[in-house]
Amino acid sequence: MGEFGLIKHLTKDIKPLQPSTKKGIGDDCAVMDFGTKRVLMTTDMLLEGVHFNLEYVPLKHLGYKAAVVNFSDIYAMNGTPTQITVSLGISKRFSVEDIEALYSGIRLACERYHVDLVGGDTCASMTGLTISITCLGVASAKDIVYRNGAKLNDLICVSGNLGTAYMGLQLLERERLANAEQPDFSGKEYLLERQLKPEARKDILEGLRKAGVKPTAMMDVSDGLSSELMHICSQSGVGCCIYEDKLPIDFAAAQLAEEMNLNIVTCALNGGEDYELLFTCSLDDYEKLIPVEDLYIIGHITKPEYGCNLIGRNGEEIPLKAQGWNAFQS
Amino acid sequence: MGEFGLIKHLTKDIKPLQPSTKKGIGDDCAVMDFGTKRVLMTTDMLLEGVHFNLEYVPLKHLGYKAAVVNFSDIYAMNGTPTQITVSLGISKRFSVEDIEALYSGIRLACERYHVDLVGGDTCASMTGLTISITCLGVASAKDIVYRNGAKLNDLICVSGNLGTAYMGLQLLERERLANAEQPDFSGKEYLLERQLKPEARKDILEGLRKAGVKPTAMMDVSDGLSSELMHICSQSGVGCCIYEDKLPIDFAAAQLAEEMNLNIVTCALNGGEDYELLFTCSLDDYEKLIPVEDLYIIGHITKPEYGCNLIGRNGEEIPLKAQGWNAFQS
Repeated sequence: MGEFGLIKHLTKDIKPLQPSTKKGIGDDCAVMDFGTKRVLMTTDMLLEGVHFNLEYVPLKHLGYKAAVVNFSDIYAMNGTPTQITVSLGISKRFSVEDIEALYSGIRLACERYHVDLVGGDTCASMTGLTISITCLGVASAKDIVYRNGAKLNDLICVSGNLGTAYMGLQLLERERLANAEQPDFSGKEYLLERQLKPEARKDILEGLRKAGVKPTAMMDVSDGLSSELMHICSQSGVGCCIYEDKLPIDFAAAQLAEEMNLNIVTCALNGGEDYELLFTCSLDDYEKLIPVEDLYIIGHITKPEYGCNLIGRNGEEIPLKAQGWNAFQS
Repeated sequence: MGEFGLIKHLTKDIKPLQPSTKKGIGDDCAVMDFGTKRVLMTTDMLLEGVHFNLEYVPLKHLGYKAAVVNFSDIYAMNGTPTQITVSLGISKRFSVEDIEALYSGIRLACERYHVDLVGGDTCASMTGLTISITCLGVASAKDIVYRNGAKLNDLICVSGNLGTAYMGLQLLERERLANAEQPDFSGKEYLLERQLKPEARKDILEGLRKAGVKPTAMMDVSDGLSSELMHICSQSGVGCCIYEDKLPIDFAAAQLAEEMNLNIVTCALNGGEDYELLFTCSLDDYEKLIPVEDLYIIGHITKPEYGCNLIGRNGEEIPLKAQGWNAFQS
């Protein structure tokens, strides 16, 4: 049934009872109205052996990433993250120093993004490490960007580059299997950083604000571009067309993909965990987008009957598939 | 080091960066100011094999309890729970029907307490079931009750009865070990209900509001009376004196304790998971407390140098120990 299918199934007929609930399940965050500003809320659970492998992920990096992916969800609604709570399930295998390292990463992320760690729960686990983080954020009601606002002819934009975090994971996995005493990561440090220590694209939102552009729909790319874009299109009731030659791809990532006989375009479409921002905005904003750094226009919104398609380098039309991150792991 | 020690150690020098953070770690909930009302936030993680045993806990009950214990934390600050997010780690051993049962319990609790389920995360787990719930609530700034407000001569009050949930667990465990085809719970249904399907004491807060009483300090009894009372005293800089013969004890619980050669007073002091409200209030409110149903005055606040003590039936003074729930499990 898959994660999205199961959540949808379990929550399909939930109706809000509280007047403060403005948006429940179905976007990057829930939205509440407690007074002058809207409050955003998002949560993520990370399980050892499923979401991370401590053989190659240092605990400090893991803590940093666990916090940042939550901040990214708040930014994806055009909000500002403000508080987190952290719940940990810890098995006996971990020392106090291990948990300090994990916390030091969480706290570093909090300092960098000006977020307060305000609570949590720590308990003994029979098995591995479990991390569950919930993040609150704020935004003015008029600033919030949902997934369902994409309109016909809107531009489709993405920040940074895609598939890079996935190639970082491939690199780590390759070196782990090679079992070398000194894994060789030279020249590929950026790929590792994208996998182990991603950043949330606060800077892009600042750039857009300065440029006077408000996206019509937005998500962060955690599962993969195809999957996220299909969410925006299905929730907005539109189709889309993106261009293979417009996809922003990192040179080192492309090089490693070639070495490893992987198709970098497939990685860019379906590799997860880039935490870049994917958004749509009005065609009228085209000129305003130009000065915003590290931002790429990759296509446009079409009528729903067109579906979601990639135009290949030779002009061929390929329907997008929401393979997402999980497809790569099986 | 223990849970409280570890959290304290890891978070000891955290300073809030966000003006909206009014209270961080150290109470039942964090408190934020996002506008007209204060927002409360609490989180709990439950791990299979640590916090619950699916051999005798039905999934629907587990879902109900997992939600209610979070509501209880919000009530313990004199707030009203409004929204929750639910994160689940699910192993392959669980069917869609199992997860539906778990969710039906969560949703029943939400309906009964008028709380909205607004988001979450569902992921595959390599091992057992993990449930992490975060709850938001609201309160006016002037209504919030912290742990640190107990004053000299304040009355110490507790709702319902104590040690009952613990005796329910003993009963379940006894029948499990006896391995009977038809476990015999007759006449003891209330003990089971207290363990499997606790309620948060919303009614007590309504009673206090109606009576015009605002507690000076409050907590819910999740770890055990001794442990919670020592938290209130250490955070308020006071001591306390409670009386053995004032402790509210359920008759069936006392009977079962006798059958099982357990000391019911020890169970009432240290057995966890009752989710009753423990609070202090001014001696001047004594008359006003009388009409509030299911509420018991068990002692009073003393000078800090007196420490935290129980006065036994024969007048003997016994220092309280924060054994808490964990002491019973080892």
